[in-house]
Amino acid sequence: MVILERIKQIIQRFSERNVSIAVAESCTGGYISHMMTNVSGSSKVFERGVVSYSNKAKIDILGVNPEDIEEYGAVSEPVANQMANNIRQQSDVDVGIGVTGIAGPTGGTTEKPVGLVYIGYSTEYKDVVKKYIFKTDRISFKKLVLQKILEFLEDF
Amino acid sequence: MVILERIKQIIQRFSERNVSIAVAESCTGGYISHMMTNVSGSSKVFERGVVSYSNKAKIDILGVNPEDIEEYGAVSEPVANQMANNIRQQSDVDVGIGVTGIAGPTGGTTEKPVGLVYIGYSTEYKDVVKKYIFKTDRISFKKLVLQKILEFLEDF
Repeated sequence: MVILERIKQIIQRFSERNVSIAVAESCTGGYISHMMTNVSGSSKVFERGVVSYSNKAKIDILGVNPEDIEEYGAVSEPVANQMANNIRQQSDVDVGIGVTGIAGPTGGTTEKPVGLVYIGYSTEYKDVVKKYIFKTDRISFKKLVLQKILEFLEDF
Repeated sequence: MVILERIKQIIQRFSERNVSIAVAESCTGGYISHMMTNVSGSSKVFERGVVSYSNKAKIDILGVNPEDIEEYGAVSEPVANQMANNIRQQSDVDVGIGVTGIAGPTGGTTEKPVGLVYIGYSTEYKDVVKKYIFKTDRISFKKLVLQKILEFLEDF
């Protein structure tokens, strides 16, 4: 399994360098956390995950600003950024990751189509949010998001 | 995929009856949330998930009593019960599920072997914790826990 091998290498490298990770995910529904924890030794690196499927969960657990959800929508750059930044600070890790998007097949609009996803990354030094549109089925969508996150972590 | 079909039926039945679910998982690392959200329409039923991999996460997000972790260990009946009960109350859902165990291959002791897992279920009317020992690899372990949870939800 090529992907598991890549995760294993990331966990090993982060473990050696004492770099810790926390993940706040919405549309990927726990898949990112699941894959990161499929590797033995991941508990040294992976501190926690939050699957904030509802807006209430985004606000209650992750402290996302409800006014930003109202103004920009739950699937937006500011929400992805807050998810990543807040989970990093709450859990006292080095890298916070936030994912919000529309996995489909329903829930899309002209402005925000099915497949739209924002991935936020937060470290002590820098926050960045990347936007993608992955037009595919629900499960492949999750895999494509994971691919992007692994690329980021490999470059870290 | 047989398992996805079973989840689809659970989501549909719970959706029709307005029954909502939240999941707090440790050793399964997000797999339960991931599988529940692989089905379109799951957002009507699945409110949130928490992957409380560290003790800090169990205490901070889920409000598990640190003294109970100290006394009984993170992999114990009282901790599984609190994970299930607290996430249910925090997220205002009908069914709270809490999973804590030792996926292995390391981390086991004579008293608490690799494969030991406690699954807590909490509803307004009743809390229950079930104990299993699944001696297998990390990924099969996650699948066996999911099987038990699906059986519970199908009987609900």
